[in-house]
Amino acid sequence: MKADLDLEAYLEEKMLLVEGALQEALPPAEDLSGRVVEAMRYSLFAGGKRLRPVLCLAGTEAVGGSAEAALPAAVALEMIHTYSLIHDDLPAMDDDDFRRGRPTSHKVFGEALAVLAGDGLLTLGLAQLPRAAAAGRLDPWLAAAALEVIARAAGHQGMVAGQAVDIESEGREVGADVVDFIHNHKTGALIAAAVTSGAIIGRASADQLRRLEEYGRKLGLAFQIVDDILGVEGDAATLGKPVGADQLKGKATYPKVAGLDRAKEKAKTMTAEARLALQGFGPEADPLRAVAEYVLVRKK
Amino acid sequence: MKADLDLEAYLEEKMLLVEGALQEALPPAEDLSGRVVEAMRYSLFAGGKRLRPVLCLAGTEAVGGSAEAALPAAVALEMIHTYSLIHDDLPAMDDDDFRRGRPTSHKVFGEALAVLAGDGLLTLGLAQLPRAAAAGRLDPWLAAAALEVIARAAGHQGMVAGQAVDIESEGREVGADVVDFIHNHKTGALIAAAVTSGAIIGRASADQLRRLEEYGRKLGLAFQIVDDILGVEGDAATLGKPVGADQLKGKATYPKVAGLDRAKEKAKTMTAEARLALQGFGPEADPLRAVAEYVLVRKK
Repeated sequence: MKADLDLEAYLEEKMLLVEGALQEALPPAEDLSGRVVEAMRYSLFAGGKRLRPVLCLAGTEAVGGSAEAALPAAVALEMIHTYSLIHDDLPAMDDDDFRRGRPTSHKVFGEALAVLAGDGLLTLGLAQLPRAAAAGRLDPWLAAAALEVIARAAGHQGMVAGQAVDIESEGREVGADVVDFIHNHKTGALIAAAVTSGAIIGRASADQLRRLEEYGRKLGLAFQIVDDILGVEGDAATLGKPVGADQLKGKATYPKVAGLDRAKEKAKTMTAEARLALQGFGPEADPLRAVAEYVLVRKK
Repeated sequence: MKADLDLEAYLEEKMLLVEGALQEALPPAEDLSGRVVEAMRYSLFAGGKRLRPVLCLAGTEAVGGSAEAALPAAVALEMIHTYSLIHDDLPAMDDDDFRRGRPTSHKVFGEALAVLAGDGLLTLGLAQLPRAAAAGRLDPWLAAAALEVIARAAGHQGMVAGQAVDIESEGREVGADVVDFIHNHKTGALIAAAVTSGAIIGRASADQLRRLEEYGRKLGLAFQIVDDILGVEGDAATLGKPVGADQLKGKATYPKVAGLDRAKEKAKTMTAEARLALQGFGPEADPLRAVAEYVLVRKK
């Protein structure tokens, strides 16, 4: 991390921007839909790290774009990420009772509303960019290009495929190739899309986009490996969820197929390679460099 | 129905167009995601009536647009409709074992994959318009405006709200206002969006759009009331699902709150009013007029 960037101040500023936009995009409802909207808001405002929105805004700023223009994409990414957590936690999926130190959606609202809250967040997330474009707040061509990237990363060629293979692999002996597939699809794709969708809205050149995509993919993999490591030796109170659950469920993780030491080594290598992909970018990419460092040392 | 329109031939031509576009949008996958894609295709190609895509194409033609241009919206609507059926059928929701004469998704693929297949179809559906715009096949402004309408109808201000209130109302005594809310949100909104999204892509005037929206809302309500009626006195073999399930579950339906006779009367009135909204349109709106008739007499 460059000495002249105060990451904490940067994150705080961006998170404030994102929180405001999320609140505006999903106010409480006063008609009969109140309960499902409450469920959507319960998970959306549950103290998430807002990593994907921050990456999106940092991605647009890295190519000289304005964070304001990329806000609809940032909001979209956080809503899509939140929907995926709600559905992943369902009894039929990972059957998790706690997330971020609070009971999961289906524990509070029941399974039906949890499914619907996820559906609602996914739909509202994917509506953000067209809504901004239709209202004249964003070039509709940029909105389409950015949404294309986000939707591909979220769908059956991305996150949905990763979660499907994750579930199918539970309790089975799988190789590193399957763990790679799961991580790249389940986590890596949307993290990469966060950076590149922001860059698209900032009118990145093809070369910039290629390098930011590489940064995002490496960062996403590092992020998920660290997640696996925290799942083994993290602190339950800090994480807000139990430790050791992955092993109990027979989840396909890096520590499982490669061992804890090699997993840690791989996370370091991926982070270094992510930063390397930013060579050629000036100080405007410092937030992206700092996030890479943060991902490696994070405790939750 | 005007004598000079052969609705069957019209439907066949449009359905052929839609089937081709659906196949192209979701081919079988050959990587590890094969199983979830298979689940998506299982429900997408299960003999659906393709009512929403046809309404979308007919909506665009009613204002002089070309069906080809509206195809991405038509595909989006069918995918979104299919996702909603998969999730509605889940054990935590309506717990239905049969749909269109075949076992429901979760019976064949398990609950986890059924949730994910729905998620995948919703995501892919909402990606269709931006994808077409990003590829230069559709004016990106029209794509944004049409998607805005579709996403609003699908999300927590539309279908998701309708299903949430439907589930919450099960087994309770509710009034006609709640049944209206459920029907308008759960079914009416997306059917109206089918017509209006097509009209937007056909560059409808504000006045045309207003009248087509009215047509769509009336038609959607008629459609759902007929659905309720078929759920009471339809033929199980023709429907491909059991009859009487709504009553058993204590579902909020028109026949329940108003009686069968008044429900039939209301369906007729709504259909007539839907056709009335098309006054001022010429023969290019005949398919929409014919669909209104069909909705009233349909047996499945």
